[in-house]
Amino acid sequence: MTTAVDRVRAAYARIAQVDRPEVWIALRPQADTESDAAAVDAKVAAGDRLPLAGTVLAVKGNIGVAGLPTTAGCPAYAYEPDTDAPAVARLKAAGAVVLGTTNLDQFATGLVGTRSPYGAVRNALSPEHVSGGSSSGSAVAVALGIADIALGTDTAGSGRVPAAFNGIVGLKPTFGLIPTEGVVPACASLDCVTVFAHTLAEAEQAMSLMAAPPGRALSAPAPRDPGPWRIAVPELGQLGRLDPGWAEAFEAAAQRLSDAGAELLPVDLAPFTEAAAMLYEGAFVAERYTAVGAFIDAHPGSPDLDPTVAGIISRAKDIPAHQLYADQQRLASLRVRALATLGDADALLLPTAPGHPTLTEVAADPLGVNARLGRFTNSTNLFDLAAVAVPAGDVNGLPFGVMLIGPAFTDERLVRIAGLLDNPPLRLAVIGAHLSGQPLNGQLLSVGGRLVRTTTTARAYRLYALDTLPPKPGLVRVGEDGGTIEAEVWQLPAEGLGVFLAALPRPMALGSVELADGSFVTGFLCEPQAVEGAREITSYGSWRAYLAALPRP
Amino acid sequence: MTTAVDRVRAAYARIAQVDRPEVWIALRPQADTESDAAAVDAKVAAGDRLPLAGTVLAVKGNIGVAGLPTTAGCPAYAYEPDTDAPAVARLKAAGAVVLGTTNLDQFATGLVGTRSPYGAVRNALSPEHVSGGSSSGSAVAVALGIADIALGTDTAGSGRVPAAFNGIVGLKPTFGLIPTEGVVPACASLDCVTVFAHTLAEAEQAMSLMAAPPGRALSAPAPRDPGPWRIAVPELGQLGRLDPGWAEAFEAAAQRLSDAGAELLPVDLAPFTEAAAMLYEGAFVAERYTAVGAFIDAHPGSPDLDPTVAGIISRAKDIPAHQLYADQQRLASLRVRALATLGDADALLLPTAPGHPTLTEVAADPLGVNARLGRFTNSTNLFDLAAVAVPAGDVNGLPFGVMLIGPAFTDERLVRIAGLLDNPPLRLAVIGAHLSGQPLNGQLLSVGGRLVRTTTTARAYRLYALDTLPPKPGLVRVGEDGGTIEAEVWQLPAEGLGVFLAALPRPMALGSVELADGSFVTGFLCEPQAVEGAREITSYGSWRAYLAALPRP
Repeated sequence: MTTAVDRVRAAYARIAQVDRPEVWIALRPQADTESDAAAVDAKVAAGDRLPLAGTVLAVKGNIGVAGLPTTAGCPAYAYEPDTDAPAVARLKAAGAVVLGTTNLDQFATGLVGTRSPYGAVRNALSPEHVSGGSSSGSAVAVALGIADIALGTDTAGSGRVPAAFNGIVGLKPTFGLIPTEGVVPACASLDCVTVFAHTLAEAEQAMSLMAAPPGRALSAPAPRDPGPWRIAVPELGQLGRLDPGWAEAFEAAAQRLSDAGAELLPVDLAPFTEAAAMLYEGAFVAERYTAVGAFIDAHPGSPDLDPTVAGIISRAKDIPAHQLYADQQRLASLRVRALATLGDADALLLPTAPGHPTLTEVAADPLGVNARLGRFTNSTNLFDLAAVAVPAGDVNGLPFGVMLIGPAFTDERLVRIAGLLDNPPLRLAVIGAHLSGQPLNGQLLSVGGRLVRTTTTARAYRLYALDTLPPKPGLVRVGEDGGTIEAEVWQLPAEGLGVFLAALPRPMALGSVELADGSFVTGFLCEPQAVEGAREITSYGSWRAYLAALPRP
Repeated sequence: MTTAVDRVRAAYARIAQVDRPEVWIALRPQADTESDAAAVDAKVAAGDRLPLAGTVLAVKGNIGVAGLPTTAGCPAYAYEPDTDAPAVARLKAAGAVVLGTTNLDQFATGLVGTRSPYGAVRNALSPEHVSGGSSSGSAVAVALGIADIALGTDTAGSGRVPAAFNGIVGLKPTFGLIPTEGVVPACASLDCVTVFAHTLAEAEQAMSLMAAPPGRALSAPAPRDPGPWRIAVPELGQLGRLDPGWAEAFEAAAQRLSDAGAELLPVDLAPFTEAAAMLYEGAFVAERYTAVGAFIDAHPGSPDLDPTVAGIISRAKDIPAHQLYADQQRLASLRVRALATLGDADALLLPTAPGHPTLTEVAADPLGVNARLGRFTNSTNLFDLAAVAVPAGDVNGLPFGVMLIGPAFTDERLVRIAGLLDNPPLRLAVIGAHLSGQPLNGQLLSVGGRLVRTTTTARAYRLYALDTLPPKPGLVRVGEDGGTIEAEVWQLPAEGLGVFLAALPRPMALGSVELADGSFVTGFLCEPQAVEGAREITSYGSWRAYLAALPRP
């Protein structure tokens, strides 16, 4: 049993190992978090049921945590809130321990993760690439295995682009579902608190604990006709320029959904793309001036201001209200077109971003590179939609991510659809007591196994009769001097293979076994010690044949 | 790539291995199913997207399959339908291949699986125990790994009790969601087509493909307030007598839901239990006479009739209509009480059955044992609720199952809640290139790993520097002559551990490693061949220490 204190200590050990100081704006002293964790452990010991007991939480620096400065990425803007933002308070009440506040693109204005006087946040997996933003530190804290979950915010993609770039899950809930009290606004009419996690289940659990209980009518998901999931997938031609290999990865994700039974529908992406361009080019950016414009004007040239962010927001001061009316009318019209083209689709599948720039590329063109990153995310909040960003494989050694975007209050449905992108079934070769009809075969069935075929290993193995109960064979690769051994190949859900492995007793082991056709598959091996003194039975060619030849007792 | 033909061949190989002829009423000739499978393979090769391509399907013997007799478990009743029942047709259209029709409690009247002239169906995992019924053959075909999915029906629990007894998933959808055309009625106003599968995902995929698209209003799930799942859990005192160990297993399932963040609510089970008793004791059994009473009356004493079933249905002939009116009024009143006590709960958690009888016990008291089995399932259909039956551990070596029962059209929500009963995170001890800061550490992160603690192995291992790229150590258990080796223990989702194992290259292996505190955890080992000639580095006590001592190149 791992205690909350253990988890917190492991988090600080990770922080020391990874050497990414730019992730944090205010990392709490370890003694303080250990004290919080000890209090959680005491509650659990007293019988309290805390669903997040010991969960290590990182909070984006624009969300209030009592006792820590809320900076929004600007030291001069900092204030210390008396109370936690409700989103934070609810996770703490469920047993989460806050590690600290994380770095972000200043005033949550940016999708790059570099726009901060606290330093550019480097990607978790490739330090020369950007982390993505604006929730840069939160995403990297989770991706590096420091925090279990982290809070971000999302106005134009800030809770999703960093998820994609760091290979984790990001949930952008329906507007209004999670309270935004205690959050420094970017565009108050669009801002959402988001969650980063390694798995959909962890992200969704946190989301459910934070959700405000509004009236039932507000939270009713849109009804749907039963039948297969209907996923709108745009043609590649409408996605614009993507990084090399990303189009193929996107098509593979669509194929995965189709293979899992979803129906793929055509969609016209034009209204989404046109709305996305309005976010910074049009009048909507004036809402950022409403939020922090006066502060920026009062600190001209301050080194605490990121010059790119300050420029974007300052320039919004003079946008006239009549232009906002016109943009709102145009947006309403685009939204009608967008919903019409979605039709009865449950979700729209899109790449989370069109590409993944390096820090150098962002420095060379801060506005242009950033604008490109929001091509697929910017329209979500403007259209009052919900979104789930999930990993969908690697391209050139870096994570590739996709989004599932759907109507307001279909958050749970989107998570379920995103789950279809999880791992396909895996294979396991068995050679002994797990073969069909043998005593441990039921273990395969109980984790969802099904027989695929019967074959043999490559001619490279020796088989030994081990001194185990029940009797089991040990397979040892010897290369050219070996024989072939009968094997059954079973298919198991990925989860089932994990459970099977976790229950495996000494001296058995699982590794990579070569089959007769030259392919390699996960299969049974054993510890070297187990075969010492054991009888070699390779010549039988099969555990079953050996058993059949034994004298009957 | 496994073809549909491969899958079908593996199914027949399994059928031959398991020697359970009573599972089938009409098993199709292998040549016929292979021909169907080849047609599926040809469609896939031509570019058709078939979500169930090669899925092997078994169909309960009361559901129509063109070309096979529909028997409902009674040879004399058999007729050969011209067309598939829509539920079957939709799965076939999606690429499923029908193996044949399965044995059942005759006229779907029973929960035991023994009431059939085609033979009593033995439990998949313990042949002296009953399979459960009435969908006995379908459940056992899936549990034995013959079929991937199977169709059942459920009027009073027939799609759930056999799932629980055989350790698999059973979905009992909302009444009306799956068409029942082509199904021999038991109680036409209550009958539902159900799905058995090893995993929730497989069951739900099949369900979504079979669902009739009714009007949107009909299919809208009940709205819910956001927040944690709210699960109604009755006190043990209301569950009545359970088999030894089942109360503890039920409480453990409730605890799992609580640990996963669900809120547990009290509930009064009395209206459910009272309604359950009405199913056979009251007037509702007359609907079974409506369905097949005239047939039974026309075949007095026929060996094709199961005497228990014939007796139950014959006796229903004389139930007066005024008693039915009275029972309907009483049921309506119980339903109001049941919904009131559920309140805003998302689901009611119940054991699927109160116990698991042997074939001998059923033979000794066919009516009494059967009636007890329906204590928790009988009320579901009477109250127009949906249910999901899932495995929840083992008791005394046999599967234990629970149900999540919820309002009509919350089927998807129930599946999601049931998913919380899936496997908790697992542990993995790493000692080399996967340690924090080492080159392969990112592989752990990418499957959702988090560092739990740093420790050492027990004093029983030797470490070798293997000739691999990147350099890796090989851990070998030697017993008393060994040393201790630094290890990091990571926590991974079960799925993540499976994915990690499947990607593991030779000569690495995973097995059970003893830690300093005497506990065993899944950890890194290697093939014996790999350490031949390799340098022993046990004395460094740690892969990191060995690397640090290497001369810099």
